[in-house]
Amino acid sequence: MKVAKFGGTSCASADQIRKVFNIVNSDPTRRIIVVSAPGKRFSEDTKVTDLLIRCAEQYLANGEGTKEYEAVVSRYREIAEGLELSGEIVDVISTDLWELLNGDKSNPNRFMDAVKASGEDNNAKLVASFFQSQGVAARYMSPKEAGLLLSDESGKAQVLPESYENLKALRDLPEVIIFPGFFGYTPEGALVTFSRGGSDITGSILAAGVQADLYENFTDVDSVFAANPNIVYQPQEISILSYREMRELSYAGFSVFHDEALIPAFRAGIPVNIKNTNNPSAPGTKIVFERPKTDQPVVGIASDSGFASIYVSKFLMNREIGFGRRLLQILEDFGFSYEHTPSGIDDITVIMHDQLKDKEVENKIVKRIKEELCADDVVVQHGLSMIMIVGEGMRHSVGTTARATKALAKAEVNIEMINQGSSEVSIMFGVKKVDEIKAVQALYDEFFN
Amino acid sequence: MKVAKFGGTSCASADQIRKVFNIVNSDPTRRIIVVSAPGKRFSEDTKVTDLLIRCAEQYLANGEGTKEYEAVVSRYREIAEGLELSGEIVDVISTDLWELLNGDKSNPNRFMDAVKASGEDNNAKLVASFFQSQGVAARYMSPKEAGLLLSDESGKAQVLPESYENLKALRDLPEVIIFPGFFGYTPEGALVTFSRGGSDITGSILAAGVQADLYENFTDVDSVFAANPNIVYQPQEISILSYREMRELSYAGFSVFHDEALIPAFRAGIPVNIKNTNNPSAPGTKIVFERPKTDQPVVGIASDSGFASIYVSKFLMNREIGFGRRLLQILEDFGFSYEHTPSGIDDITVIMHDQLKDKEVENKIVKRIKEELCADDVVVQHGLSMIMIVGEGMRHSVGTTARATKALAKAEVNIEMINQGSSEVSIMFGVKKVDEIKAVQALYDEFFN
Repeated sequence: MKVAKFGGTSCASADQIRKVFNIVNSDPTRRIIVVSAPGKRFSEDTKVTDLLIRCAEQYLANGEGTKEYEAVVSRYREIAEGLELSGEIVDVISTDLWELLNGDKSNPNRFMDAVKASGEDNNAKLVASFFQSQGVAARYMSPKEAGLLLSDESGKAQVLPESYENLKALRDLPEVIIFPGFFGYTPEGALVTFSRGGSDITGSILAAGVQADLYENFTDVDSVFAANPNIVYQPQEISILSYREMRELSYAGFSVFHDEALIPAFRAGIPVNIKNTNNPSAPGTKIVFERPKTDQPVVGIASDSGFASIYVSKFLMNREIGFGRRLLQILEDFGFSYEHTPSGIDDITVIMHDQLKDKEVENKIVKRIKEELCADDVVVQHGLSMIMIVGEGMRHSVGTTARATKALAKAEVNIEMINQGSSEVSIMFGVKKVDEIKAVQALYDEFFN
Repeated sequence: MKVAKFGGTSCASADQIRKVFNIVNSDPTRRIIVVSAPGKRFSEDTKVTDLLIRCAEQYLANGEGTKEYEAVVSRYREIAEGLELSGEIVDVISTDLWELLNGDKSNPNRFMDAVKASGEDNNAKLVASFFQSQGVAARYMSPKEAGLLLSDESGKAQVLPESYENLKALRDLPEVIIFPGFFGYTPEGALVTFSRGGSDITGSILAAGVQADLYENFTDVDSVFAANPNIVYQPQEISILSYREMRELSYAGFSVFHDEALIPAFRAGIPVNIKNTNNPSAPGTKIVFERPKTDQPVVGIASDSGFASIYVSKFLMNREIGFGRRLLQILEDFGFSYEHTPSGIDDITVIMHDQLKDKEVENKIVKRIKEELCADDVVVQHGLSMIMIVGEGMRHSVGTTARATKALAKAEVNIEMINQGSSEVSIMFGVKKVDEIKAVQALYDEFFN
């Protein structure tokens, strides 16, 4: 059996939901369907989730927000009418949202989570209702009923292990299950959401729970591309990726698939297929545990900006046991996470997402490093970009680094940092933001043209 | 004024000490002379320090060791005779050593430190005596009298800051000062030594204390070479190096100059000149704060073996604040220092001098990492070598990495790891030990031929 998840654009309108229906209906093994809230119909459109957030903010601020409430309901009404459904389902949705908005607001985080999650929840009800109208035995399944239990962390909940056991029962239901993405419940029964875009996570957890043969993730592109199409003209499509490759690419800017969503599938060994709702016959991109070996060392090139570095030097640093650990402790004290710590003999550089927006905090950190670690020099640099070349093939091919660094040198890109660990699935280059596009283009030319 | 330090081979025989005398005498600004214990006269010879260590071990084990005692005294006697000195100085030395060996052994570390240090101490007395015999106003200066105060760490003492103020007074003495290297005293008056080869450190501290214009370090090679002459045929001589370059090179296997010895000179901004006692007219290698810019990006290539790596992977590692810090904490709990921590997204590799000789300890560490950090995978790899290309010129030259990685690829050396920090004075490559020589040769060819 397959678990199929349909994203926001796949549910944005009646026409799109008809496509979803046809896709599901064309393959009897597509048994469990996860849906997002209706997304954008055109680029300037507003997603239902964003309408709901405004709605919740209005209610929290003013105790009401009729205009915002109406905007949400009218999106569902329009879809229901387009699908030729009776008014009944719109009544169900509008009543549900109304009660939610006028309900308990004593805990604003809980309130916000519940209102946001209603986007997926009501959409699942609507889609189930359409499937039924088409004569398909389908049923809406609430995450509460299914036992999708999450940790009590609003907006960044994590799945609890007992969920998988609970979800296994979904295998045996005779109907096609329509399941809302993005949220679940704490063991105490409170609704909590994943991080934004978390419907991918729901689908992955369900696939792991029911031990699906495949987790299909339907979105609005034919496949994952080897580079960002905004930077590289018509980049190659990637037909197959390993979990690790996908993970590394999505870390560095590939946003096709929520990176947390890989974990449940990865741990359960379930392959993922990213497909296009608008072109379902295209094979899409498969994400698997182990992909066939190729001669091509690099499968994709990703880049991301907004990094900063803290360079710390101290003569004979490498003789001091605990220097690096104490440096990281100082950053942890400020709640800062870090990405990488390339080091020379007497220097270490901490690369992080630029969390140093506040000059005062930056000065405090620099002061602590200088004073507590007796550092000779501490230099903060903003405006860095990370570029990652990814491929399992690198493991077996001598000279990938040489090709990459030569391509960067030819493009006159100065490499601020290289991080190549022993895994050899990726090599990361730190460059100045101004060089980012040039660098990606040069690397793409080298490895794909 | 200059501080000149003469190493073991420069003091190994009467002939060598005559060279020392001529060098000092030829330049009236050479005012403070630091001497090592007599070293090897030929490659199979034994250093006086090693004779002394055997001696101390005999006395500790058996309460006596006449043969070993005689071996030491006869070395001094031979030198004194060669220098046509009266028997008086040999009596002074033999009595001093006899009293030392038959003195307090209640603290074996203190006893060992004192016996070892007597090698330098008695040699300084002997050299002063020779200078006087040649009509030069010279005097032996004891580190105690001079106020060279060290931390109480046998065999790895660190200079205490008040030493510099104390040593300043040596400037004003009218005589040429002959100062024994390698040891000093705790504020409580106990003799303690630096780490092995620490006479370089004494010289550097004296140079900083008297604010010398130059610290001359006399050894037995004309200069520092751009690569290890045992690996590369007739490597280029290096005429000038920055402190940082020297530091990075000596870290990775360049043993011409004790790396700790750079600190006092570096902090006081005193240039260092490494020269050859056997060819004093050669300009040697200068080590300075800032060297003139050159077009040559790389000044030297060093390599060292005996490294190990611990590779740790965990899905979504990079989202966990504190993962790296806790990993380092585990190693610290075992008293292990580490060198570098290159990292991917979900993996981190700890590179260390191979301290994992004990399989049982290795297993314990791996177990703790797996259990406490819930790591997916932990892999220990032994037999790694680090190769370092060093040069201030890299800072200004795009493409050094490209040249290096291309050269390694051509030589079919697989790069296990690259560590290039933001300092850009060095790039480090981790390779398998079997590839070390091939790699150094390939890099030397690329940057020097």
